[in-house]
Amino acid sequence: MVIEPYVHKVQYYETDQMGIVHHSNYIRWFEEARVDILEKLDMAYDQMEIQGIMIPVLGVHCEYKSMVHFGESVLILPRVKSYDGIRLRLSYTIIDALNHQLKTLGHSDHCFMDLEQRLVSLRRKRPDLHERFQQLAQVRYRGIDNE
Amino acid sequence: MVIEPYVHKVQYYETDQMGIVHHSNYIRWFEEARVDILEKLDMAYDQMEIQGIMIPVLGVHCEYKSMVHFGESVLILPRVKSYDGIRLRLSYTIIDALNHQLKTLGHSDHCFMDLEQRLVSLRRKRPDLHERFQQLAQVRYRGIDNE
Amino acid sequence: MVIEPYVHKVQYYETDQMGIVHHSNYIRWFEEARVDILEKLDMAYDQMEIQGIMIPVLGVHCEYKSMVHFGESVLILPRVKSYDGIRLRLSYTIIDALNHQLKTLGHSDHCFMDLEQRLVSLRRKRPDLHERFQQLAQVRYRGIDNE
Amino acid sequence: MVIEPYVHKVQYYETDQMGIVHHSNYIRWFEEARVDILEKLDMAYDQMEIQGIMIPVLGVHCEYKSMVHFGESVLILPRVKSYDGIRLRLSYTIIDALNHQLKTLGHSDHCFMDLEQRLVSLRRKRPDLHERFQQLAQVRYRGIDNE
Repeated sequence: MVIEPYVHKVQYYETDQMGIVHHSNYIRWFEEARVDILEKLDMAYDQMEIQGIMIPVLGVHCEYKSMVHFGESVLILPRVKSYDGIRLRLSYTIIDALNHQLKTLGHSDHCFMDLEQRLVSLRRKRPDLHERFQQLAQVRYRGIDNE
Repeated sequence: MVIEPYVHKVQYYETDQMGIVHHSNYIRWFEEARVDILEKLDMAYDQMEIQGIMIPVLGVHCEYKSMVHFGESVLILPRVKSYDGIRLRLSYTIIDALNHQLKTLGHSDHCFMDLEQRLVSLRRKRPDLHERFQQLAQVRYRGIDNE
Repeated sequence: MVIEPYVHKVQYYETDQMGIVHHSNYIRWFEEARVDILEKLDMAYDQMEIQGIMIPVLGVHCEYKSMVHFGESVLILPRVKSYDGIRLRLSYTIIDALNHQLKTLGHSDHCFMDLEQRLVSLRRKRPDLHERFQQLAQVRYRGIDNE
Repeated sequence: MVIEPYVHKVQYYETDQMGIVHHSNYIRWFEEARVDILEKLDMAYDQMEIQGIMIPVLGVHCEYKSMVHFGESVLILPRVKSYDGIRLRLSYTIIDALNHQLKTLGHSDHCFMDLEQRLVSLRRKRPDLHERFQQLAQVRYRGIDNE
């Protein structure tokens, strides 16, 4: 499946007094792109919550490779790093929207919970969603990956 | 009733690339001080929500008088501007913690709602809270107001 | 001049525990749309700063008319409320992107400063920019205003 | 050297619609406590920047162990994980302020830069600061560590 990369335009309120994007915002950008890709695969967060499935964040990791400035746009590219029906690790590559220079690498770890905050095995309880997460692992980005 | 002023220490993540606090953060500081003063008068937000009373924000207004920088601390002083049992307007004065220089003026407008999002008259439904909001209007700040 | 309305898609990190967008974020959305419209009229903030003109925020005002939720998108429509070469007031209307329901009204006040933080009269010092701000006052939004 | 733990009171604007603190805020809390501890050891960020030393963030890592809610307060405890005069890794433990329940674990990686954005070896160029970072590694928290 080939999808469009998620674009984020840097906002003034995301900068700090070093004149660059404050490092905490990248964690929010990961979320933006995660929400976007799940939506593109028909697993929108708000629809999932209505169906009683939440996808909490267990951990995040972020390495800042080069600085991002106000006025720039970046592509945020989430990919499935590992998925076994119970746990999900997404990796993120952030690159400059124009010249594709590497900006940031990171990943986030997730599980699946029902509304009573119990762990859910998608493999057993929701084979429909399980299949979609397997499709997610096959995603390629237009203009970035070999299609 | 004399209470301590609310102190906020400016955080690095609150600055922007102009080298000053981003203007949106003052709206959050108003909330910090509002939460604090309600707590001091035994009307903590989380306790109010448990009792089924929410205090949504209907509007905010903010005038930036002089800039605030990282490394500085400010005092945020909410006061009851008007209150009639149904509507509440709080004004805010933000001053430098050391020299009391004026930094920001503002106000916020509120009503009271129950969990079904219906307007509540505290005067009729919650005379106990009504009385406390009247006390709130009498608050004086130690070291700032004539005591 | 007819331009496209600025679209903002609500992010999960913009919500609060009331289940709606936290009220401080609208101030940031005003900025997003302000940056966007200035860019569309060839007065991008970063280009202005390179030319030595800054447009600080002197004040903001915001009235919350109906709540905005995660999963929704809004149009943010800045318009020149008043402009005299020295001072600028922009008004903002935020409406639902799908049904155009009114969400928020507001305005922001600005002056123009050089890098030494002295007030600048665009009328006298920068007639080229002065003319563009007058054009800004004529902007109409595609699909919203009578064209 | 025994110092007071850094206390953060959870703000309403830090929550999200899951009813808990949004995960991006912990990265900001790490910064708050890092700024605080450097200040306590007489290496305040703003003083460091005046002296021409910046401490950029190269990476962050965060594991969410249990959820934090509005109305709670947490202690954020930075410690030197490794330091060699050129690179610094700080670890962070976040615990409930009342019952010391573990909330979050994390770390951040840093280098030292001059104003021209060149790497600086504190060991060689700033032995005074080098010594203080070695003291930082000896810090113990009152009421937490064996004193």
